[in-house]
Amino acid sequence: MKKCRLMAPGPTPVPDDVLLKMAKPIIHHRTPQFQAVLKRVNAKLKDAVKTINPVLILASSGSGAMEASVVNFLSTGDKAIVIKGGKFGERFAEICSAYGVETVDYDVTWGESADPDIVDEMIKKNPEVKVVYSTLCETSTGVVNDIKAIGKVVSQSDTILVVDAISGLFADKFEPDNWGVDIVVAGSQKGFMLPPGLGFMSVSKKAQELAGKSNLPKYYFDVKAALISHANNNTPWTPAISLIIGLETVLDMLLEEGLENVIERHARLAKVTREAIKAIGLEVFALSPSNALTSVKVPEDIDGTLIPKMMRDEQMVTIAGGQAFLKGKIFRIAHLGYMDVFDTISTIAALEVVLSELGHKVEMGKGIGKVQELLKSDKR
Amino acid sequence: MKKCRLMAPGPTPVPDDVLLKMAKPIIHHRTPQFQAVLKRVNAKLKDAVKTINPVLILASSGSGAMEASVVNFLSTGDKAIVIKGGKFGERFAEICSAYGVETVDYDVTWGESADPDIVDEMIKKNPEVKVVYSTLCETSTGVVNDIKAIGKVVSQSDTILVVDAISGLFADKFEPDNWGVDIVVAGSQKGFMLPPGLGFMSVSKKAQELAGKSNLPKYYFDVKAALISHANNNTPWTPAISLIIGLETVLDMLLEEGLENVIERHARLAKVTREAIKAIGLEVFALSPSNALTSVKVPEDIDGTLIPKMMRDEQMVTIAGGQAFLKGKIFRIAHLGYMDVFDTISTIAALEVVLSELGHKVEMGKGIGKVQELLKSDKR
Repeated sequence: MKKCRLMAPGPTPVPDDVLLKMAKPIIHHRTPQFQAVLKRVNAKLKDAVKTINPVLILASSGSGAMEASVVNFLSTGDKAIVIKGGKFGERFAEICSAYGVETVDYDVTWGESADPDIVDEMIKKNPEVKVVYSTLCETSTGVVNDIKAIGKVVSQSDTILVVDAISGLFADKFEPDNWGVDIVVAGSQKGFMLPPGLGFMSVSKKAQELAGKSNLPKYYFDVKAALISHANNNTPWTPAISLIIGLETVLDMLLEEGLENVIERHARLAKVTREAIKAIGLEVFALSPSNALTSVKVPEDIDGTLIPKMMRDEQMVTIAGGQAFLKGKIFRIAHLGYMDVFDTISTIAALEVVLSELGHKVEMGKGIGKVQELLKSDKR
Repeated sequence: MKKCRLMAPGPTPVPDDVLLKMAKPIIHHRTPQFQAVLKRVNAKLKDAVKTINPVLILASSGSGAMEASVVNFLSTGDKAIVIKGGKFGERFAEICSAYGVETVDYDVTWGESADPDIVDEMIKKNPEVKVVYSTLCETSTGVVNDIKAIGKVVSQSDTILVVDAISGLFADKFEPDNWGVDIVVAGSQKGFMLPPGLGFMSVSKKAQELAGKSNLPKYYFDVKAALISHANNNTPWTPAISLIIGLETVLDMLLEEGLENVIERHARLAKVTREAIKAIGLEVFALSPSNALTSVKVPEDIDGTLIPKMMRDEQMVTIAGGQAFLKGKIFRIAHLGYMDVFDTISTIAALEVVLSELGHKVEMGKGIGKVQELLKSDKR
């Protein structure tokens, strides 16, 4: 018997109810039956993303939605500020570059969050900038950016703010409309608790106006076609029907639990995981850690690539290693989506054993005890 | 009790085994476990598509794969011949136009198939053309094009041939490598018997060389990144994991049945459906009908939009109506994927009743009898 635990920052475990809902016979997408699903899902999505703007559902991964947030709002030779503090910030810059958009890069040290004052200065120095791109949670480092403060700064200019909330949504506090976020980009395989295959993009009025002026080429990700279809509870291309059927169930779950409670749940798991990490004698990598995941520095006496490998192959607990130059230097434990306190206890239990087997001195149960605190009735 | 039957040319019914396979707990995509899945799937895909070329799996609908077949092989101002005999041929022209590619349009009358001699003339008149775009089965009309003959013509030139086989694959005879097809575009929700959400694109050596010269902007659909990942049994972006898990099962089913038998099964269902249509006194619309679906002319005494509506709402059998200017003029019954002779009998039974209720004179059972012939043991 091998019981696997998925504790990586995406894809995240899918609740059984959702898996079974998606396993129902497929229905046709050009029917009143599916349009009714889309109508309900579109409304619930707005509630869940906390926006009054339409939230488009794309048949793509999150990277496709990131591309959509570039090609629809900019023109050749336009300038955009990109906040780069990890792999996903860099992805925005790569997409801009692929489409001939000039980027003004804010290279944040990996592990740190962006300084809103620097963003302010950059906008003032480059008043021709049309869009500012930021991540909410930078999954590669585990950092959460202060989008509220960045939004305040951007709101004072004519530029729009695009936020990659792919891994941060439902884990970190996020109020796109109140904070001046024009475009929220998301993906299905993180806080949405679905398999990968859906991208999401909300579009503010200001962003829709900008879309009218954009000359970058697009077709599959054309936001104008998608907005027209969206208004009719339809999609321009064949949608990923089964995932959208599952989407309705997870939206119901999230809204029933209450969005504040969902975030609080992530925050609590993140907090005790970090206390466990400290109790084990390790150090958290991110200076402003997101609730979505905890990035942990690998102790110097250990080959860091072995930790996720042994966790997965020997303990059947899938966590993530470091990406790019952080490979072997950090590992990442998620608190994202359908993960609870017992999953976290199991993860820390496995980690204590793996570290010990790698020759690092660990007192068994010391980390677990910290997570166990959450089991006391007053904290549940 | 409402038992629905999906008899439209996509999405098609998904076999229960596949639904259940996809309902298993999600696994992480950056693991040896998933790489092993991709390795097997990549090999089986080549077998199923009958090509030695890599078949890329995209997290998108078929339209995304169509876009990939444009943006990766052409440059601004390049010319392409587009065979347009329906909605999906037109889509190629729209994508080309969105990306600044000049199209030389071959406007085939809807319902007819393309004349290879005319394609030959067009290539000779426009020797600078880089790509010829065609559909195998044009889903909007039910026509199958003679790709073998078109491929022969294109092979004599320097251009490459892209074939949208989204609805034709596994229904119509199709030998991409033997027929000189460089790029096969496909989607998951047709002959693959999966939910929508995967696009496929095979890429010949000649097409890969052309990709090296293309300057059209792309990122999400970049074939060069995808080919590098493919060679390592990986994907550049997060793949639609659950659909790929299901893909392995359907590929096993198709290969076990035998590709010739799969096509023969479609051909037999198509043949008896057409005999049933004639027995009812109706006429097939397509002059060269595909095995994927049967398009039927609506008798003049009937409001054609009511046929699919009543079939769906009263008989719970989902067929398709006509698209664009064929709306109300034709309806379309699929034979595509996981549909058998009893499904077809049910469809014809429902159709006889619906036509009769609409005031068209129908002798009950006359059409059904034609399909019933297939139940005789020597034909199964």
